[in-house]
Amino acid sequence: MEPSRSVLTSPALQRYRQIRSQTERLAAPLSAEDCALQSMPDASPVKWHLGHTTWFFETFVLERALAGFSPYRPEFRVLFNSYYVGVGARHPRPERGMLSRPSLDEVKAYRASVDERIEVLLARHDGDAGMVELGLQHEQQHQELILTDLKHLLSRNPLYPVYSNERDKNRTDADALQWRGFPEGVRQIGHSGAGFAFDHERPRHRVFLAAFRIADRLVTNGEYLSFIHDCGYERPELWLSEGWDARVAQNWTAPLYWTQQDGRIDGKQFTLQGLRDIDAAAPVTHVSYFEADAYARWAGARLPTEAEWETAAGEPRSGNFLESGHLHPMCGAGQFFGDAWEWTSSAYGPYPGFRPAAGAIGEYNGKFMVNQYVLRGGSCATPESHIRASTRNFFPSAARWQFSGIRLAQDI
Amino acid sequence: MEPSRSVLTSPALQRYRQIRSQTERLAAPLSAEDCALQSMPDASPVKWHLGHTTWFFETFVLERALAGFSPYRPEFRVLFNSYYVGVGARHPRPERGMLSRPSLDEVKAYRASVDERIEVLLARHDGDAGMVELGLQHEQQHQELILTDLKHLLSRNPLYPVYSNERDKNRTDADALQWRGFPEGVRQIGHSGAGFAFDHERPRHRVFLAAFRIADRLVTNGEYLSFIHDCGYERPELWLSEGWDARVAQNWTAPLYWTQQDGRIDGKQFTLQGLRDIDAAAPVTHVSYFEADAYARWAGARLPTEAEWETAAGEPRSGNFLESGHLHPMCGAGQFFGDAWEWTSSAYGPYPGFRPAAGAIGEYNGKFMVNQYVLRGGSCATPESHIRASTRNFFPSAARWQFSGIRLAQDI
Amino acid sequence: MEPSRSVLTSPALQRYRQIRSQTERLAAPLSAEDCALQSMPDASPVKWHLGHTTWFFETFVLERALAGFSPYRPEFRVLFNSYYVGVGARHPRPERGMLSRPSLDEVKAYRASVDERIEVLLARHDGDAGMVELGLQHEQQHQELILTDLKHLLSRNPLYPVYSNERDKNRTDADALQWRGFPEGVRQIGHSGAGFAFDHERPRHRVFLAAFRIADRLVTNGEYLSFIHDCGYERPELWLSEGWDARVAQNWTAPLYWTQQDGRIDGKQFTLQGLRDIDAAAPVTHVSYFEADAYARWAGARLPTEAEWETAAGEPRSGNFLESGHLHPMCGAGQFFGDAWEWTSSAYGPYPGFRPAAGAIGEYNGKFMVNQYVLRGGSCATPESHIRASTRNFFPSAARWQFSGIRLAQDI
Amino acid sequence: MEPSRSVLTSPALQRYRQIRSQTERLAAPLSAEDCALQSMPDASPVKWHLGHTTWFFETFVLERALAGFSPYRPEFRVLFNSYYVGVGARHPRPERGMLSRPSLDEVKAYRASVDERIEVLLARHDGDAGMVELGLQHEQQHQELILTDLKHLLSRNPLYPVYSNERDKNRTDADALQWRGFPEGVRQIGHSGAGFAFDHERPRHRVFLAAFRIADRLVTNGEYLSFIHDCGYERPELWLSEGWDARVAQNWTAPLYWTQQDGRIDGKQFTLQGLRDIDAAAPVTHVSYFEADAYARWAGARLPTEAEWETAAGEPRSGNFLESGHLHPMCGAGQFFGDAWEWTSSAYGPYPGFRPAAGAIGEYNGKFMVNQYVLRGGSCATPESHIRASTRNFFPSAARWQFSGIRLAQDI
Repeated sequence: MEPSRSVLTSPALQRYRQIRSQTERLAAPLSAEDCALQSMPDASPVKWHLGHTTWFFETFVLERALAGFSPYRPEFRVLFNSYYVGVGARHPRPERGMLSRPSLDEVKAYRASVDERIEVLLARHDGDAGMVELGLQHEQQHQELILTDLKHLLSRNPLYPVYSNERDKNRTDADALQWRGFPEGVRQIGHSGAGFAFDHERPRHRVFLAAFRIADRLVTNGEYLSFIHDCGYERPELWLSEGWDARVAQNWTAPLYWTQQDGRIDGKQFTLQGLRDIDAAAPVTHVSYFEADAYARWAGARLPTEAEWETAAGEPRSGNFLESGHLHPMCGAGQFFGDAWEWTSSAYGPYPGFRPAAGAIGEYNGKFMVNQYVLRGGSCATPESHIRASTRNFFPSAARWQFSGIRLAQDI
Repeated sequence: MEPSRSVLTSPALQRYRQIRSQTERLAAPLSAEDCALQSMPDASPVKWHLGHTTWFFETFVLERALAGFSPYRPEFRVLFNSYYVGVGARHPRPERGMLSRPSLDEVKAYRASVDERIEVLLARHDGDAGMVELGLQHEQQHQELILTDLKHLLSRNPLYPVYSNERDKNRTDADALQWRGFPEGVRQIGHSGAGFAFDHERPRHRVFLAAFRIADRLVTNGEYLSFIHDCGYERPELWLSEGWDARVAQNWTAPLYWTQQDGRIDGKQFTLQGLRDIDAAAPVTHVSYFEADAYARWAGARLPTEAEWETAAGEPRSGNFLESGHLHPMCGAGQFFGDAWEWTSSAYGPYPGFRPAAGAIGEYNGKFMVNQYVLRGGSCATPESHIRASTRNFFPSAARWQFSGIRLAQDI
Repeated sequence: MEPSRSVLTSPALQRYRQIRSQTERLAAPLSAEDCALQSMPDASPVKWHLGHTTWFFETFVLERALAGFSPYRPEFRVLFNSYYVGVGARHPRPERGMLSRPSLDEVKAYRASVDERIEVLLARHDGDAGMVELGLQHEQQHQELILTDLKHLLSRNPLYPVYSNERDKNRTDADALQWRGFPEGVRQIGHSGAGFAFDHERPRHRVFLAAFRIADRLVTNGEYLSFIHDCGYERPELWLSEGWDARVAQNWTAPLYWTQQDGRIDGKQFTLQGLRDIDAAAPVTHVSYFEADAYARWAGARLPTEAEWETAAGEPRSGNFLESGHLHPMCGAGQFFGDAWEWTSSAYGPYPGFRPAAGAIGEYNGKFMVNQYVLRGGSCATPESHIRASTRNFFPSAARWQFSGIRLAQDI
Repeated sequence: MEPSRSVLTSPALQRYRQIRSQTERLAAPLSAEDCALQSMPDASPVKWHLGHTTWFFETFVLERALAGFSPYRPEFRVLFNSYYVGVGARHPRPERGMLSRPSLDEVKAYRASVDERIEVLLARHDGDAGMVELGLQHEQQHQELILTDLKHLLSRNPLYPVYSNERDKNRTDADALQWRGFPEGVRQIGHSGAGFAFDHERPRHRVFLAAFRIADRLVTNGEYLSFIHDCGYERPELWLSEGWDARVAQNWTAPLYWTQQDGRIDGKQFTLQGLRDIDAAAPVTHVSYFEADAYARWAGARLPTEAEWETAAGEPRSGNFLESGHLHPMCGAGQFFGDAWEWTSSAYGPYPGFRPAAGAIGEYNGKFMVNQYVLRGGSCATPESHIRASTRNFFPSAARWQFSGIRLAQDI
């Protein structure tokens, strides 16, 4: 029976199964305990991610498609609602780590039940296909968050637990940084094609850019270490005022997961493979916007705007700009491109003509468009299909638990 | 073989096994997830209690008794050290909920390994018997904390999980409160006998007491409800100044686990058996010192001092004062006496002539003798043998997550 | 002698004296007590403003111009340094209200001494004229802050003290709001002329704007009251997510200085003339970016970008857009244009090609270019010459103590 | 006329005038600015003390004595009410430093007006004499607070302002510490005489004391320096657990006003006479209960209980225990006895049989009887008549801004 089933499976159903099961593969090495803890209000337990992504399909697809719909468990409507006030009450985000119940097994059963109902819909070509696709894209965003949130949790354990034993190859020496120049002019940015894009990537629109140049690769750990050795963390004149305040208040002296012995950097960093030597040739990651900005100032450069970044990324001859894909064993097969999310100097806001969707789904992006900065590119933890020239990620300027790095730009 | 083993088992070994296994019985209904979470800095995960009580035996018994001792896992020396600076570094208390590793199973294996080594010692009548006894008394203290900390955790889950399905019998109507009088005079308090007592129960010493009377039972939920209905929570003149500040800041309007519907008390409370009707005839519990004090003032009475309490409890004819034992099904067989810890008006301090033990074990009680108040008696969660007239429990004045209640006293 | 002095006085000297004495006129109605208090970390005591503006001339003009310069009092170099790390240590901003010494009289003597030395320089056409001009512009910025910080202080006094008895005329009914449209195209913004501009107004540069329309007047108190009556403060769907969090945490239910009786808006607001009736036809002020944004969403509009604003403001036929001047008696003679600073949707950042000045003076604006939003226009408290189409003011999104209001825009 | 006035002046009137004018003498060297600022929530502006002590007479004497009483200014009833909920609303304590109005001159006029009305009462032997006396004792308590709160304020000014130029004589070497022993037995403590005492000094009652010895003088700065040099601030085993937490959180490394150069104690301390050399032979002051307790433990001793202290102080032959009076120039003529308030190990609570007065005045002391510790003796800033064997002062265990010192005791 199984073979015939796969013969009959539609591409939409295959895609649904593949993405949903990828989420479960990410959680597979983890115990119920690993999945239940919350390390800070910004991060969620893995179990919550498993439930929330399921809630998304139940709420935005099943409930709308099925006459006489009844929820799997009514209380999950509240527990797994992230921030959609249009859907009703939400369990408070900082309290997601208080939930030993439902158990991990119960959440997996919830997933299975919703999957079954979605698959029935997909099999009969029913339901809102656009919303299913949004749910899958949403699921992939949470796949990345599962890894970043888990990394943060494990980092707070003095045992430095290992999530995965697969190893990244150490890089050979990084190539010398090259600049690529772009003349001034009116450019177009934003998503235009037929494929999927989040609402905030639209509409495609014109911007005027002055001439600029942009680096062809990210800043490396080795380069960042030079900034540290040049007292980068002790010189307020290199920092934005609020950045310096954050650096002092949180006592930053290096990227987030770099470890110390006796108060000094010891050449190691915590990773999902446990404590590892820092690879000088690899891109620096887990820096805040403030650190990225200070590094750029120290280097006689600046961060690119998102329009500059997208202009550079979108050039047909940009093959050597967008790094050629390499497999990240940690994230499973098929990941490529994108070593780190790249901070831009652009505050996150709406594109001219931006219209959020009607109803609760309109809360997806629009209501976060203040006091955050855009990151472009994608990281080793980002599903491949999300690494588009038009993708806009965004985080507050002090956030460091994402795989966030630095690309330099300059005026010409 | 098993029968012969029990024949050969010494009373010390039997006692050790019985108390250690009782701890595990308390944790038996819980999942690994239940055991890993920490609901507030004051409360610890069940898993941590399981490890810490084991660490106590390893550190204070095995390490001292065994030449060439090596620890089960060196890192546990730090992870499971609660507050003994004399033993070395400690994992920070508010971070106990960050530890998904070691797993619950690993902690159970740790328990088994230490138990095995302790049992060898006990079998050959080796090791510091006094320290073993202290370790068992310590373990019993943590048995109570396992229940109170777990109750706090589960209470923060909107699903109101059930720990135990056994039910307390509802009380019949509470008897009318009777006063028992005591004339002035020099009394003796403190532990004097040959049995075990914690260091702070000693030395037995004389105190002068003015004449007083004391209630023969605890304040009931029904009586406390009258205080609430008489606007007890809205009248600052009934409260200590700092108590009123706490009541406002934390928005107290009832004992800790009483629930509300639409902003009004709904006659239910969260318990380890889930959400239950409040029994008007049962003692009120989960009130802070501030609430106990305000209630007493409202009732035209005051809290007893610990010397008054012990004087009353210790009287030979006090049979009807110390409630006759009743089984608390929740706590397993064999528990009796003590409905709730009873706040006294006595600040926790050393008895005249108090000497803490030398070394790290001297940190057991003495260093907490400031800004806490003594509670006497014992609760449904307290192991029976801890319910002595001389037992001194202590908590800060705003603490509410213990089974803490109210007994009234008056000057004559 | 005095007449001949004025004959000999250069325009630069006249201008210096006029602006410096205007600052003192603002402080004239105030007691030493009024001038010493600090109501929050964001606001400074009037006395500190008097000292700091003087420190600016001493540090950036006198010290550089005079061989063998010695400071008036060396400790003032620290006390009155605001945020220039390049100048050395600073007295912490939240501690400015701890300084009963130097007294107000001592600070006035400091002003007089520095004025005397600056006037000598100006009389002989010595010193850095550009820096003197920057010092005067800086002084004028602090004239506005003196009024806004004072207003905040007095508002925290339940006596509602009166700073000035002069009264604004009540407005007649506000005109109906008119929209003015602008077609898409490449525009130029930024300061280009020969006159003074702050560094962040430059360089003038091109931007591409989509077609938009913009309101010809500010939102009035009456209109804002309709938003309140339509439950604007109770509907999270109207707010940015972070804005809603701020609204809840700070319990906003109306603009900052609107007062309440028995928990309800009472039609009055605190002003520098004491408690006054709210004028329905006057522009609403003292709203945060979050409130401005929520109001705009409720009104089916949005905030303009700063490029849109400047485009509209700079149009030759914009006479009826930039309100015709009216005297604000409170601010003294000669003030006109600008009822309120107008929130734009633009995050504060550098213009393309922006270069801060070398040395400490480069800290003037550049290091604040993160997590703040641009306001355009100018208020009743803004010196007239600062009300330029290119002026950029900036504050964090939750700030409400400035005279900040709302102008609507829309896509076409 | 003046001579005849004094002839006619009753002793009660004379006493009233003398104490009220002493308060004004303390404020005389201060500017309006000095009197307006508040350095922390625990401390009040001098102006507020001037108003509050006046409010006390107006509220508890005039209002009750005068038919048709009308308050001087109704709003002062709220502004200058400290904590008497029975009197009505209170201006929040942390906001006392927000009041530039009423001005210092207005508060002085308030004082004069109330004085005039009280003096009329006293002249005709009207009014509640007991309440007048309480008002005067209360005023004297605030005389001490004026000095301690002012000292804290001036200490936060990097200019180290001088309040008084009079100098304490440096002590010669401190005498060797002598112990005085007391046998066990039932003692009496509490105020018994006809003179004034605060409610909490009563009733006199019996206590049983074990044998103890007590030091005949306070711990000196020199001795305390030995504790510091012996790493007293780096050894948690010397501290109460909560004390160590406070020491770490607040980074204590010496008594409150000891200054540092380059991170090291420099032998100087801030005083009301400005920065002064530390006198090794003088009693250490401005230590918290936690520091006093840690010092005592280091010294192989403990703090006395308040019953022990009063027993020792009350002995007829205690002349050499209670230091012979010496003039403290700072506090004006007539001060003697009491170098510092002396921490006892006794938590502040009611004496057996304590009854607070009826009505609002019952809030004077009773509602603070939790989480504070009793200090005995009196300081250089304490009015002489308050230095009684039965006087009970009380502060939280982390308070350091009072003139608080250390006397050692031991079990025998």
